Amino acid sequence: MEEPAVTEQVEQEAPPKPTPEYVEDLCKQARSAAGKLATLSTTLKNRALTAMAESLVEHTDDILAENAKDLEAFGTSKDKAAMADRLRLTPERVAEMAAGIREIADLPDPVGQTIKMWQRPNGMQVGRVRVPIGVIGIIYESRPNVTADSAALCLKSGNACILRGGSEAVHSNTAIAKVLSEAAEKAGVPSGAMTFIDRTEREVVGELLKQDQFIDVIIPRGGESLMKTVTTQSRIPVIKHDKGVCHVYIDADADPAMAKRIAVNAKVQRPSTCNAMETLLVHQTMARTVLPDLVKELTAAGVEIRGCPRTLQYCPEVKPAANDDYGQEFLSLILAIKVVKNIEEAIDHIARYGSRHTEAIVTNNYGRAIRFLREVDASAVLVNASTRLNDGNQFGLGAEIGISTTRIHARGPMGLEELTCSKFIVFGSGQIREG
Amino acid sequence: MEEPAVTEQVEQEAPPKPTPEYVEDLCKQARSAAGKLATLSTTLKNRALTAMAESLVEHTDDILAENAKDLEAFGTSKDKAAMADRLRLTPERVAEMAAGIREIADLPDPVGQTIKMWQRPNGMQVGRVRVPIGVIGIIYESRPNVTADSAALCLKSGNACILRGGSEAVHSNTAIAKVLSEAAEKAGVPSGAMTFIDRTEREVVGELLKQDQFIDVIIPRGGESLMKTVTTQSRIPVIKHDKGVCHVYIDADADPAMAKRIAVNAKVQRPSTCNAMETLLVHQTMARTVLPDLVKELTAAGVEIRGCPRTLQYCPEVKPAANDDYGQEFLSLILAIKVVKNIEEAIDHIARYGSRHTEAIVTNNYGRAIRFLREVDASAVLVNASTRLNDGNQFGLGAEIGISTTRIHARGPMGLEELTCSKFIVFGSGQIREG
Repeated sequence: MEEPAVTEQVEQEAPPKPTPEYVEDLCKQARSAAGKLATLSTTLKNRALTAMAESLVEHTDDILAENAKDLEAFGTSKDKAAMADRLRLTPERVAEMAAGIREIADLPDPVGQTIKMWQRPNGMQVGRVRVPIGVIGIIYESRPNVTADSAALCLKSGNACILRGGSEAVHSNTAIAKVLSEAAEKAGVPSGAMTFIDRTEREVVGELLKQDQFIDVIIPRGGESLMKTVTTQSRIPVIKHDKGVCHVYIDADADPAMAKRIAVNAKVQRPSTCNAMETLLVHQTMARTVLPDLVKELTAAGVEIRGCPRTLQYCPEVKPAANDDYGQEFLSLILAIKVVKNIEEAIDHIARYGSRHTEAIVTNNYGRAIRFLREVDASAVLVNASTRLNDGNQFGLGAEIGISTTRIHARGPMGLEELTCSKFIVFGSGQIREG
Repeated sequence: MEEPAVTEQVEQEAPPKPTPEYVEDLCKQARSAAGKLATLSTTLKNRALTAMAESLVEHTDDILAENAKDLEAFGTSKDKAAMADRLRLTPERVAEMAAGIREIADLPDPVGQTIKMWQRPNGMQVGRVRVPIGVIGIIYESRPNVTADSAALCLKSGNACILRGGSEAVHSNTAIAKVLSEAAEKAGVPSGAMTFIDRTEREVVGELLKQDQFIDVIIPRGGESLMKTVTTQSRIPVIKHDKGVCHVYIDADADPAMAKRIAVNAKVQRPSTCNAMETLLVHQTMARTVLPDLVKELTAAGVEIRGCPRTLQYCPEVKPAANDDYGQEFLSLILAIKVVKNIEEAIDHIARYGSRHTEAIVTNNYGRAIRFLREVDASAVLVNASTRLNDGNQFGLGAEIGISTTRIHARGPMGLEELTCSKFIVFGSGQIREG
């Protein structure tokens, strides 16, 4: 009877690994898994995804119990209510996560797809095929569903992932990650393919960002301070999911009913998202006809409006906008409005205050529609459609890991294809280089 | 008469701008030019490129005079002969630079190309179009022709560029950059579109790498120490042009004549390039039939061979390989040879020692050809063709800025298309987001 007790004693007293060693070990495991993941068959990956979805639902009670710990630690003060709601899991939300994973199983596998193939004058066939990126590090805050989405998207695209969630959700995330990786491994996915970092000390992020020999890309999803830490410290290429300061511009020849419908949708349908409208620009000739009604409708929907002096001429009930209301990402039911002289002023305003995320014009003038599409720089530019449509599912790309605001590799919604890179393959018959 | 003299005096005594301010000012100019460059017409860009090529040839004497200063400072000691040759310009080399620029003028403009366009069930048309990345920082060593190539490729793809060349070539590069940017501006290209950094202090690189608000991507081309500095310090995404440790594997069923032709070409045709072969792997059953002849041929071409014990069995004249000869980038007429048991050992050797740049198999066995293509991870994997063919021109992509060894954005030869990113455009008719 004594021996096991001693062993346990020793195990309990063993000091935890130092952070750098802990992080490096996880990264090495992920790198080694990545090699095997790259050539897994689609059938095996889909079977694993289905098993992961089933297992999530089966373990709903365990996950909710862990989530309760996070919620208790987070507290229930009124100013935290919105955040607590994002953190809270319910049986329905667990079922939604599972449904999301099943959807990813149904999407086409990007790995091995031939993007293009052509023949050279010397007879060799050159092709470009999609291969996994390798190891993807994802650093995120809040919502535990990101854990499930990220793990599933990375597995389907043949990548190993290293996930670091917010400390406020660590119990929920750890529980979800455990369920998912156990189900995946049982289905034949190599261990290390999904690595969740369950230690919450701050240094973990700094250590992760040094692992350029093991991690191929870092995707941060979160607020300004996370973006800054990652940009400043990372030795690994970063694809940011940064903020969206999005505009709708109602042009002189807009259809008033369409303009109002798009503006209301862009602001109200889900104001906490990065593709929601933050500032409405209105051509001066439309201000009189459109603004009074539109402001009434927005106010009725609970929107607080902050207008420029000309807005106030038509809508005296509106609060005056401060200078720094333009360019702000409210992420809530607040909207800045500005009346502009012409499309030039609208485009200049967007170039100055926008974050190059999503920009829309409402117009029936052909020339100005084309000009807006051409001159406005953003991940998505829309004519006569709501900014809220800049989304992987809405665009038909399938589930997305987020909306990239980095200009290289992927810009805009990042789906499965954007989680791959390419390699050239050559079918030769003895070709050599002559000159 | 006194006043102008005083003014001159003051100008001469004004201290140079501090490095951080100097670099930031250049980056701001480039950023401002990038906005205008993005919408320049193809006609104007091509006219500017032609003028740049003409002007280079016209100013040959000035450029050679500045090049002479660099060569004098560099020295003529024997160990530096190869480097000095890379640095040296001649009227022919200037003419080649000009020809390279004219070729870029002839290539299709990637900007504005629609990659794909599709319709969603709600009727909106979604398209993905190529746009310039924005501002590209290129940090390189040695050869002055990189200045001309980079400036021309960036202009054609609508990007502003900030060029920092090696200090040993600063006079040549400054002269070339001056000729090119003057010709471009005269043709209507905005000033700041091509920025060459003519100050040589080391801190310039560190300052450049902090300018993530102005520069969108950094492309380093050079040795290990440059790669390390850039990876460690950059806040900007980096696309590396790193080393190539490339292998040719002669499989059991290879055609002996083809195997020899490919191996000799891969090693000898231009050994100083990143896609030249550094290690030859030979299946054990082929060693007896192929190695003696091949080693003779390579030796006759001036190659120093370092072989494994089994190589020495067939070719006793060969020097034994040290362990660290495998995985080394010789960049010269040195070759390591290893006899392997089977394709598994070849693939494992490549995974362990290769740099994921360019890998080739010579075989007539269908299954092993497909397996090699699938399992070997590199920017290009070739069957029955020389590693030297991994090149933008050889693959038909046109002129390249280099061969990327980074996995995201562009992998392998980076041509004009790889110097762009995309934006989504939407032609709507009033669509909003429902769920």
